[in-house]
Amino acid sequence: MAKQYKYQLTEKDIPKTWYNIQADLGFDLPPLLHPETKEPTILPPPLFCEAINEQEFSKEREIEIPDPVREIYSSWRPTPLIRAHRLEKALDTPAHLYYKYEGGNPAGSHKPNTAVAQAFYAKEAGVKRLSTETGAGQWGSALAFACGLMDMECKVFMVRASYNQKPYRRVLMETWNAEVVPSPNAETPMGQAFLEQDADHPGSLGIAISEAVFTAGTNDDTNYSLGSVLNHVLMHQTVVGLEALKQFEMADEYPDILVGCIGGGSNFSGFVLPFVREKIVDGKDTRVIAVEPTASPSLTKGLFAFDYGDTAQAAPILKMYTLGHTFIPAPIHAGGLRYHGMAPIVSALHDRGIIEAVAVSQLPVFEAAVQFARAEGIIPAPESAHAVRVAIDEALRAKEEGTAKVIAFNLSGHGHFDMAAYDAYNKGELEDYEYPAEEVEKAVQLLPEVELA
Amino acid sequence: MAKQYKYQLTEKDIPKTWYNIQADLGFDLPPLLHPETKEPTILPPPLFCEAINEQEFSKEREIEIPDPVREIYSSWRPTPLIRAHRLEKALDTPAHLYYKYEGGNPAGSHKPNTAVAQAFYAKEAGVKRLSTETGAGQWGSALAFACGLMDMECKVFMVRASYNQKPYRRVLMETWNAEVVPSPNAETPMGQAFLEQDADHPGSLGIAISEAVFTAGTNDDTNYSLGSVLNHVLMHQTVVGLEALKQFEMADEYPDILVGCIGGGSNFSGFVLPFVREKIVDGKDTRVIAVEPTASPSLTKGLFAFDYGDTAQAAPILKMYTLGHTFIPAPIHAGGLRYHGMAPIVSALHDRGIIEAVAVSQLPVFEAAVQFARAEGIIPAPESAHAVRVAIDEALRAKEEGTAKVIAFNLSGHGHFDMAAYDAYNKGELEDYEYPAEEVEKAVQLLPEVELA
Repeated sequence: MAKQYKYQLTEKDIPKTWYNIQADLGFDLPPLLHPETKEPTILPPPLFCEAINEQEFSKEREIEIPDPVREIYSSWRPTPLIRAHRLEKALDTPAHLYYKYEGGNPAGSHKPNTAVAQAFYAKEAGVKRLSTETGAGQWGSALAFACGLMDMECKVFMVRASYNQKPYRRVLMETWNAEVVPSPNAETPMGQAFLEQDADHPGSLGIAISEAVFTAGTNDDTNYSLGSVLNHVLMHQTVVGLEALKQFEMADEYPDILVGCIGGGSNFSGFVLPFVREKIVDGKDTRVIAVEPTASPSLTKGLFAFDYGDTAQAAPILKMYTLGHTFIPAPIHAGGLRYHGMAPIVSALHDRGIIEAVAVSQLPVFEAAVQFARAEGIIPAPESAHAVRVAIDEALRAKEEGTAKVIAFNLSGHGHFDMAAYDAYNKGELEDYEYPAEEVEKAVQLLPEVELA
Repeated sequence: MAKQYKYQLTEKDIPKTWYNIQADLGFDLPPLLHPETKEPTILPPPLFCEAINEQEFSKEREIEIPDPVREIYSSWRPTPLIRAHRLEKALDTPAHLYYKYEGGNPAGSHKPNTAVAQAFYAKEAGVKRLSTETGAGQWGSALAFACGLMDMECKVFMVRASYNQKPYRRVLMETWNAEVVPSPNAETPMGQAFLEQDADHPGSLGIAISEAVFTAGTNDDTNYSLGSVLNHVLMHQTVVGLEALKQFEMADEYPDILVGCIGGGSNFSGFVLPFVREKIVDGKDTRVIAVEPTASPSLTKGLFAFDYGDTAQAAPILKMYTLGHTFIPAPIHAGGLRYHGMAPIVSALHDRGIIEAVAVSQLPVFEAAVQFARAEGIIPAPESAHAVRVAIDEALRAKEEGTAKVIAFNLSGHGHFDMAAYDAYNKGELEDYEYPAEEVEKAVQLLPEVELA
């Protein structure tokens, strides 16, 4: 009989509730602040429906997943937990390496876990359309996919540089019926202003956020949707970790080390938070490692402070690890990891030493990705490959130490739309980037002045 | 509780044997003939190992799947059978529409089911390298993937036009460690001859086959590998239909109509042959429909005759439906369906009226693909979309008739590497092609003269 390496749950094992870690933190998260008044605020009601606002601030431990959302989840969930036995062999390590694979759905990443939920609540609230921004295209694809299935309209502001360089991501969104426009775009006042400066303005995530927010704010039938950072987004992703907990029971193991890549914080949190609960509440001794790029090192080099969520200072102020809202990322291929800040929940956990962070650079990340692809078959997204790198590093350390550590990482997506990056790596044309410390010092001067009562 | 629409088997349900329909046909398949002597032959031993040759001509009903092959299958098998409930709703049909999804593995199609088996037997026979040809790139990707996992070398001759137009497929193969060269290529005598005629020769599948066969024939450490047509290839694909049979038991239904797209015959056969067995042996009343492009209509417009397997007349002669080995396909986007002939097993079943065939053209195929993508989420490969088209047509016919027919099709792969085709369709730039009858009449003049004892 062939050996078992894949731990596959069935449809009835799809979680019935999301896990809300705010119930177990033992402390309150700092408030969200209005960008002008700097007073505590909820998520702006013209942009978000009430159900989302409730979830954002809830302290209920378990929040029910609506049946229609579970029905759509069931198209691709539960996702497999796989023992990377061929990679273990290639590394000659005594470690047990596992990965949870979230790239098996049509949008190719973990992002639909929240996109479907957000589209559902908006539709229930009578909203006809969702607007959002996308850089590399993973989040925009997920929201377009969710809106397609929900029969809702979707408008995506795609950073113009990506719009021109990654046409296939655009076609994917259009095939699901989304309207995709390059950002900056003349249809918004801020877009118009940027285009007047430069008719070929390449755009940025900060500008695209402003345009998507403006569109939702000025159209009654439209809400705004965000793919990471906020509490409710992280909570929707906990289906990943909740399934993984069950799958480790099937495998009769428990992870010593958990690894996830991190940009805004959503795939990392979805995977680790249910295990962090066991660490906080049950005293489990698990190392939890967030992996960020050296080109965008908010957790390892940033400041834990109140900062604006976007460049244009239109979004709420959050207490988070930040490189400053004026941060301009280097053009690394992990576009999903280039945000200037970090989810408040992840920031608080890091500040209190409950999780660790490590930064890795692009070349060793792609080296790990190719090694993983040849051993396990799946071509990782450049973002997910950051987790692969550190999981391999820990497996090699276990080999040195001669310990059979159980290491698990979240393989948050595939790289089918990132083959240009692999081509550059295969040809030796990729470069490493390290964000300079002096830039962080400069950016910190621009943090908003906040006085809390 | 959310309703169940996905029928998910577990690892222990992966078939332990392949199903060999030669045991149940009730007649012998016509022999394979040597291209020069025109005498009955086996598969040329310098190209294929003994285990493959045995399987090609075996009449054993069940052939054991080696454990190492099942282990690799388990990375993505069993694949789901999904009730297309949202598409049913969009069509407002009483039909029950099911699809078996084979695109969830890293190579993105059903092709690894045979690639892994062929790589395994070659490695067991001491072969170090496999050579093959690829047009659109799906088969080359699957063999590169399989060789990567098996630690074997892989050499792919990629039709030069595709090599230039589809660089991402090339990068995918290279990332799995395959050597990919454009065909025609100066490293083979036939490649050299074509390049002397035209230094930018765009190539063809026929030329690429000749180069891959030459490479295997002239290198002791190299075997040749074919992705469709031959009996052993179709047999390796029966894991698809064997799983589907179990899944229909779970769903407590039995298909009235089975649909698969067809080029050389491998995905269609893998899906339907276990059901064809129940039709032949148990008298089940199931319509089995093969869908081909109007641009390459071997079953609907070709002749059932002995013809060469390749353009250069170097491969064995097969009794099959053929458009003639000189057939030059129109540049439709379903590159995997552009072969001039048809698998001998499929040809014999069609000749005896056990299966039906229908030809559809490119525009309605993409229309169906987009409708499917918006309802079900998955973007079909252009090849698989041929099956989607006819499944939808049958569901609409069931609506007219007011019957709750159970219709099932094989969604053999995803379209992530075919987004340029979707872009062209979305922009209204795609054209329909119909292969002219007079071309078939001309090609028939060139069939080899065969006299069987």
